[in-house]
Amino acid sequence: MLRNIKLTIEYDGTDFLGWQIQKKGSRTVQEEIKKAIKKIFKQDVHVIGSGRTDAGVHALAQVANVKLKTDMPCDEIRRALNGNLTDDISILKVEDAPLKFHAQFDAKEKIYRYTIINRASRQSVGRRYVLFYPHKIDLKVIKEEAELLIGKKDFKSFQSKDPAKLTNSTVRTMKSIKIQKKNDVITLDFTADGFLYRMVRNVVGTLLEVGIGKRPLGSVTKILSQKNRIYAGPTAKAHGLTLWGVRYKN
Amino acid sequence: MLRNIKLTIEYDGTDFLGWQIQKKGSRTVQEEIKKAIKKIFKQDVHVIGSGRTDAGVHALAQVANVKLKTDMPCDEIRRALNGNLTDDISILKVEDAPLKFHAQFDAKEKIYRYTIINRASRQSVGRRYVLFYPHKIDLKVIKEEAELLIGKKDFKSFQSKDPAKLTNSTVRTMKSIKIQKKNDVITLDFTADGFLYRMVRNVVGTLLEVGIGKRPLGSVTKILSQKNRIYAGPTAKAHGLTLWGVRYKN
Repeated sequence: MLRNIKLTIEYDGTDFLGWQIQKKGSRTVQEEIKKAIKKIFKQDVHVIGSGRTDAGVHALAQVANVKLKTDMPCDEIRRALNGNLTDDISILKVEDAPLKFHAQFDAKEKIYRYTIINRASRQSVGRRYVLFYPHKIDLKVIKEEAELLIGKKDFKSFQSKDPAKLTNSTVRTMKSIKIQKKNDVITLDFTADGFLYRMVRNVVGTLLEVGIGKRPLGSVTKILSQKNRIYAGPTAKAHGLTLWGVRYKN
Repeated sequence: MLRNIKLTIEYDGTDFLGWQIQKKGSRTVQEEIKKAIKKIFKQDVHVIGSGRTDAGVHALAQVANVKLKTDMPCDEIRRALNGNLTDDISILKVEDAPLKFHAQFDAKEKIYRYTIINRASRQSVGRRYVLFYPHKIDLKVIKEEAELLIGKKDFKSFQSKDPAKLTNSTVRTMKSIKIQKKNDVITLDFTADGFLYRMVRNVVGTLLEVGIGKRPLGSVTKILSQKNRIYAGPTAKAHGLTLWGVRYKN
């Protein structure tokens, strides 16, 4: 029986060259899952993810789907996959989805979290998941600046220049940016209908420059209007970024 | 000027053979700090920790003291040390302490946290810091059982047998055990005036067996009275354990 299996996947991106299958010899999450399925079910499948994540970026709940011929119960598939994957990938959920479900095209909304440790000394415990940023940040200013990114906007200036990764439309709707501070940890949660290549990291790099006074308040409005990557700030490091979740219709 | 420098230290225990200096070739936190001080100040010091932590055990705020001849301001010492240590150690604080301050003998209270991820699939992000435990745990039962360990007791049954590590008195005062669950994460915070070798891990291993119904409620009272390690449960894995803090007089 051909089934469309929806996978919810956690991974620690540290030792991966990102989600998407690359040339031989590059370890990617998509390929590891494809290989595990091949090993268990002797089937060559295409693992469709909700979207790519870069080298070093983590995921708490990436979503993918695969067309699979099997009668194995979902929970058994979950256990078999985990048993055939290294511990930096964890299959959290396996569900039957309608045959037409497509993890990428049906995604309505994605949430990314960027995490910063903002204090004098670096963080050792959990350092794979946070950006160490010792400079004094004005959180009120960052929050105000982030508000300027909310809504349907052309984020072209925040898209990285890698020509292979450029998409046709660079318009996205940023639904919310929630910024919180707890002790020395600052988190920025971005919710949008989609993100351009490196968009979150370029936005974070820019917001941080505003937050330390290197750029004036209101910078991002000007940058958005300039529609050119060269005007935005630096790309914040990958390891601070985690794909937090993907939302689908109904 | 001879100063007594108090250090507050965070470390990720994953790649260390624990706190205490071992035979040559074993990487330990104490030795890394000793070497960094030697490099910066050309002085051979004894780094006195509040106590040992085992191989794989982490610390958010281990405390140590060193006698050092220098006029360097504390914050500069902190930066110099961090600059000469790998990123799995972070010197959070450097303070001048009275010359008689002794990080081990003056410690009044220690807090350890043991963290468990309790769900069907393992955790990938942050897996170095949590024990994956998929069995169904009755939290109410564990909390009730933990109460039986509160107070001044002879914890001999929970001390590991390594003869080199046995201490004279095995009586300790367990001040509190706070057990919390948030989503799938269970944390157990132990506060005591001191802990025997592997005591927290042996207690956790025993509490978990009570929590899954393998041992009856009230087991720890009997085990305490038996004063023999063989009656307690297995040693819970090191990587779930973190030294959370050390408290000193005043």
